[in-house]
Amino acid sequence: MKLIALYKRPNDLQAFEQAYFNTHLPLMNKVPGLRKTVITRFTRTLMGDDFFMMAEMYFTDSSALKAGLKSPEMAAAGENLNGFAAGLVTLLVGEEQEQPMTTNL
Amino acid sequence: MKLIALYKRPNDLQAFEQAYFNTHLPLMNKVPGLRKTVITRFTRTLMGDDFFMMAEMYFTDSSALKAGLKSPEMAAAGENLNGFAAGLVTLLVGEEQEQPMTTNL
Repeated sequence: MKLIALYKRPNDLQAFEQAYFNTHLPLMNKVPGLRKTVITRFTRTLMGDDFFMMAEMYFTDSSALKAGLKSPEMAAAGENLNGFAAGLVTLLVGEEQEQPMTTNL
Repeated sequence: MKLIALYKRPNDLQAFEQAYFNTHLPLMNKVPGLRKTVITRFTRTLMGDDFFMMAEMYFTDSSALKAGLKSPEMAAAGENLNGFAAGLVTLLVGEEQEQPMTTNL
């Protein structure tokens, strides 16, 4: 189970990156149950919305994610996020599954 | 290097899923250089845009992805996509990096 944050392109990329990596990520890393975070930097938008970055935050399972979302550490991270990414962020919960490469499903 | 497709929630979920998994995914699996595809089904939208699904399509490197994007197999997959997901899809290119869990960066 993972929490996914999609960020639209900010006006000031450098200020955003500094805030994200120097203040937000360390706060997120304190959230109980978080196993790992994978950052994707988007380099091209081929179609649709112009997103800048995605963070995929993995929790062991659905109950670990629920507990993490309700934690005071998450509240602190959310408050921090509002300070630099209000209006830029889409926040989703999801489950991932690798697909078989066969072309005969 | 990966190609990321984000899908907004379609009106007819069942028709979308059938088209995606039965026709689009098999066409995408023919694209040269594609190593694996990871599907994320979004179960909750906590903030921002209401996306339904994400496909992360991994290629070995940037040149493999470029070649894949220019291939006739990708053109066929793109044409198929337009038939059922026009206006729903955001298509991005990105590079991912796992973050260290230390809180002292």
